Amino acid sequence: MRARDILTEFPTVTLDTPVREAARLMAERDLAGLIVLNGDGLPCSVLPGTQVLRLAVPGYCQDDPALARVVDEAHADRFLDELGDRTVREALPPSPRELPVTDPDATILEVAALMARTRSPLVAVVDGGRFLGAVTLAVLMDRVTDS
Amino acid sequence: MRARDILTEFPTVTLDTPVREAARLMAERDLAGLIVLNGDGLPCSVLPGTQVLRLAVPGYCQDDPALARVVDEAHADRFLDELGDRTVREALPPSPRELPVTDPDATILEVAALMARTRSPLVAVVDGGRFLGAVTLAVLMDRVTDS
Repeated sequence: MRARDILTEFPTVTLDTPVREAARLMAERDLAGLIVLNGDGLPCSVLPGTQVLRLAVPGYCQDDPALARVVDEAHADRFLDELGDRTVREALPPSPRELPVTDPDATILEVAALMARTRSPLVAVVDGGRFLGAVTLAVLMDRVTDS
Repeated sequence: MRARDILTEFPTVTLDTPVREAARLMAERDLAGLIVLNGDGLPCSVLPGTQVLRLAVPGYCQDDPALARVVDEAHADRFLDELGDRTVREALPPSPRELPVTDPDATILEVAALMARTRSPLVAVVDGGRFLGAVTLAVLMDRVTDS
């Protein structure tokens, strides 16, 4: 079994997509994360869902649990509003880590190791400069426990 | 909106659950991860799905992509077999990090910040020494993009 056998169509965003829209897409389609494509149509970032939250939650709340607690409930409910029109480009973390990107020939073990190493429940599959789709943790788990 | 308003019943495993069974549970119920309860019925570990893979994928494959690639496809397909009867207790990482555990009064912003900080799409909710359930990233995203 190779990556190409278990990949699924996966919606993408671009660097210019507003973060609010990206969060909505994730919620509506129940996605494990987001794949960000650059101008060439290639993944430049693969964001696990928790990383999308990192774009949306104010930094001081992430760093200090006590500060998150003092924001009153009404404001806490609407924390996404503070994003305004910020785009994915503006919200991406500065230092790129290893990207969970592989080729269609990768074995299921390679994909699992990549997910484990990058802590991403989502791996983008690219072949010769073309984005083909994604392997999700849910599909991978399903296949390895069936076999 | 507080953690108690968005928590859901969530299956748990114990330290004595075989890792294979834990992986199967995750696949069958399409879970974002697993909550491990100790002998007192309290969360002692909250494992995101990618962390469950860390329990299952041989360490040398996680550390070195080239080594994962040389395992032939037939063996790669069955990497879970190597787990044998290893239990969650034996497979847990040695150094516990911050646990994504909160109380039912936490605001949605606190829960989001905790998910972002611990990179866990899953937060366990505990009240006065009792495990109540979990808030998942999917449910949280749904609520914050609706509001």
